[in-house]
Amino acid sequence: MIPTSRSTVRRLPERARYDRATVDAILDEGLVCHVGFVDDGQPFVIPAAYARQGDRLVIHGSAASRMVKRLAAGEPACVTVTLLDGLVLARSAFHHSVNYRSVVIFGRTRAVADPDRKRELLRAFTERLYPGRWSAARPPSEQELKATLVVELPLREVVAKLRTGGPIDDAEDMALPVWAGVVPLRLVAGAPEPAPDLAGDPPSAALAWPPEA
Amino acid sequence: MIPTSRSTVRRLPERARYDRATVDAILDEGLVCHVGFVDDGQPFVIPAAYARQGDRLVIHGSAASRMVKRLAAGEPACVTVTLLDGLVLARSAFHHSVNYRSVVIFGRTRAVADPDRKRELLRAFTERLYPGRWSAARPPSEQELKATLVVELPLREVVAKLRTGGPIDDAEDMALPVWAGVVPLRLVAGAPEPAPDLAGDPPSAALAWPPEA
Repeated sequence: MIPTSRSTVRRLPERARYDRATVDAILDEGLVCHVGFVDDGQPFVIPAAYARQGDRLVIHGSAASRMVKRLAAGEPACVTVTLLDGLVLARSAFHHSVNYRSVVIFGRTRAVADPDRKRELLRAFTERLYPGRWSAARPPSEQELKATLVVELPLREVVAKLRTGGPIDDAEDMALPVWAGVVPLRLVAGAPEPAPDLAGDPPSAALAWPPEA
Repeated sequence: MIPTSRSTVRRLPERARYDRATVDAILDEGLVCHVGFVDDGQPFVIPAAYARQGDRLVIHGSAASRMVKRLAAGEPACVTVTLLDGLVLARSAFHHSVNYRSVVIFGRTRAVADPDRKRELLRAFTERLYPGRWSAARPPSEQELKATLVVELPLREVVAKLRTGGPIDDAEDMALPVWAGVVPLRLVAGAPEPAPDLAGDPPSAALAWPPEA
């Protein structure tokens, strides 16, 4: 992707990546994005579940949601996904840092009107976040589909930024007897907690999470 | 805190909390916030480490950073912290959801000019994210302090929103033989990875993370 003035990373440009493979890998690992939009000059930043579908990001929500309504109206948006990978401990307080991978997307979202495409995107969205559930669960009714807005944002003006590896200390600090390194962080799933009132004898292998890459 | 028109949750208002105890607990568990600001009508959403200090949120960064410069200029901002707690699997595709706790703060950030206060905020910031490191690591030089902008955002116009618990299915779906429940998610720390070139014999108990509540 070609960097634009707003998607070009100016601070620490060596951390920026503009290739789709890097962007897609980050988007396909994350679960929650932060959606930015402007209302009367005031920025709003709202978390939302999302899924990448090919060359676009898909978000959905209630037709009654302020955020989804703003997105459906096609106003300028910025959607950011951040994965936190670790705490970086340096020999100096100044060089402490965080390992992360993030993607920032600029653009205008578009509401998906066609009911067949909407259903297909919801299917893909559900399968991405909750693998295997679209076929296991009751599919959406016509009324449920109508109550759901689906918006998509093209992955056109997008940049990834990441920090990996250990601390980068100043040469004159290297001899200090201070522990330095990385404390890795990651999101893990615990044991599934069944609802207390399950009917019948549903398969207990409820969900393969995280999904196989 | 008294909800304002922009901080009042309109969609699913039963998930909103306006009390400081709830807000503080979420802010004190998170590590990364998403900072929203507007530049020429375009929203930007940028991830940043943060720490709560009393009744304000503290963010810092390079004096060369676009985001930090915008924040230091005191323009309208929105800062959001989101903790992802689980995937909620329902008997219908429609009622699948996510358990989360989030805080959204509106306001104008202010740059901290006083050097003593700046140093104190950086100390508190470092101790919050990397417990025990302010005293272990080399303290910042005057030059490093000057290269760092510290901004604070008062916790005045702020709202927490959260979803907890199991799926809420429609009555007519309760008899379906579909597994339903929650897959809990949490952020965990792995074994610390020392830098390859540690000098002396620094204590290996590098960091108590997560910090004791």
